[in-house]
Parts: sequence; C-alpha cells; structure tokens
Amino acid sequence: MDNTTLDAHDMAMMRLAIKQAQRGAEQDEVPVGAVVYRGNELLATAHNLRESGNDPTAHAEILALRNAAKTIGSWRLTDCTIAVTLEPCPMCTGALVNARIARLVYGAADPKMGCVDTLYQLCGDSRFNHRVQVVAGIMADECGQLLTTFFEARR
Amino acid sequence: MDNTTLDAHDMAMMRLAIKQAQRGAEQDEVPVGAVVYRGNELLATAHNLRESGNDPTAHAEILALRNAAKTIGSWRLTDCTIAVTLEPCPMCTGALVNARIARLVYGAADPKMGCVDTLYQLCGDSRFNHRVQVVAGIMADECGQLLTTFFEARR
Repeated sequence: MDNTTLDAHDMAMMRLAIKQAQRGAEQDEVPVGAVVYRGNELLATAHNLRESGNDPTAHAEILALRNAAKTIGSWRLTDCTIAVTLEPCPMCTGALVNARIARLVYGAADPKMGCVDTLYQLCGDSRFNHRVQVVAGIMADECGQLLTTFFEARR
Repeated sequence: MDNTTLDAHDMAMMRLAIKQAQRGAEQDEVPVGAVVYRGNELLATAHNLRESGNDPTAHAEILALRNAAKTIGSWRLTDCTIAVTLEPCPMCTGALVNARIARLVYGAADPKMGCVDTLYQLCGDSRFNHRVQVVAGIMADECGQLLTTFFEARR
C-alpha cells in the first residue's frame, strides 16, 4: 500500500474520530478525536479529556496511542495508522514518532500549535529515529467546524 | 526569583531525579528520572516506564506531569518546576508547554531527540501560548553517565 494515499477505510476511521470529538464536546472538552487502527483492525478510540481528567497530557492522540499499545501489548505501533480530527501539537507529534507509528491521517490544520505541517514538520525530520507518513486535510471543514462551534458557544 | 538561576533546592531536586533514573535502570528501563515541585513542595517523582508499561508515552516527564497535576487538582502547572536528568524529547517538551509549567531544569543534552536546545528550541517559541524558562546542564556528567553505563551493559 502507498502510505500517502487514502482508502475507504481511512475515511470510515476519520468519521469515527469525528464522532469521538463530538462526544468530547458533549463533556465540555475541546472537541478533538483520534482513532488508531492496523489494517481493518480497530485498536483504540479516544477524545480529549484534559479538563475532566485534570491531565495536561490527556489529548486524544496520547490516550489513543496508550490504549492501542495496551491492546497489542507493545509500545511499538508499527504498521498502525492514527486518524485525528486536528493537526497534532508538539507533544502529540512527538508521541507519534516515539510510538513508531506508520501513518497519520488528520483533518483540520492547527495554526496555533500544529507541528506536523504548520509550525514545524516533526513527522519528516530525518534526525529522529522514525518518520511518520502524513495525509493532511481529510474532512478538514467538518473537523474545523466542530472546534469553531465549540468555542463560539463558550464566548 | 530569577527563573533562570539555580538554588540549593533545585540541586536537591535534581539529585532526587537521578535517584529515580537509577531506579528505572534497576527495572531495565532507560534511566531517565523526573521530579516536579512548587517552591519547597514536592509534587511528583517518576522514571521512565516504557518497557514495563508497554506505553510509548511513559517517559519520566509525562508521568511526573500527570502525577503533579493529579496532586494539585489542575492541569495547569503554573509556578511549578520540573527537574529531568535528560534533555526532553519533542513529546515531553510539548507536554511542558501544554502544562504551562514555569521552569525546566535538566541534566545531560540529548543529541538524538533533544528539543529544548539541541535539535529544536521549543520551550522558547513565541508562537506557542506558553514559554518555559530553561536551566540546562545541571549535573550533566552524572546524568549522562547513567545512560552510558546502562547501554554499555546491554551490549
């Protein structure tokens, strides 16, 4: 498989990530959702839990990576893909590299914290011991709209 | 207090971080230790648990930040300092920014993954919503020697 192209399963997984983000919003969490999968095998789903968990590291991606690693019994998520509704921040992009995950599929760009394409390009830095393939902008409007609606409602 | 100078308490906290790293090595974990404190109040200690926890995010810093946030009941670690034996990786540096921690005191530089001074300078990037004050190279020889000894013994 060409890691930089998208198939129907990736789209289905992104829809699942969006559902997770919506669930986050219902709990007053910034609506970001993430799903980790390996081929057709779903390994983990998560949404942001920073507020309710009082946990600065509880972004959707971190929680999904931890749960996926628990599911397969290894911290190495080789051959796995993560679908996320928002471009990962420095912490989460670094976690993708640390987890040796094969692919990242993400929705909306993050002009404030995005470290995959926007502010830095950490996934492709050849000085690190692992590179992550990236597919950007998938259902970006829908993913971004979730955030816009959430923050507008709180003003 | 000038955040960029070091006092006797910082040195004591770094000694505690080194002890944590040694405890990690005894459990066959890459020996990195971290301590979070606020003034003279010790909030959390941790060492790397990636292997035994099968958790790609279980670096000492992430665990210490999570535990400190639990201790104070907030994800915002304002007015807190973290002492770490090794220069933080992209994931952990990003976590420091996300946690709004005031200061980072670290030991050895990390030529492979260091994102505070070596490969990137994420703590001082004014585009992020928070900057972390950095004091580098504290007990660097001792902190680095722990890692050298650990990896030599495994060859």
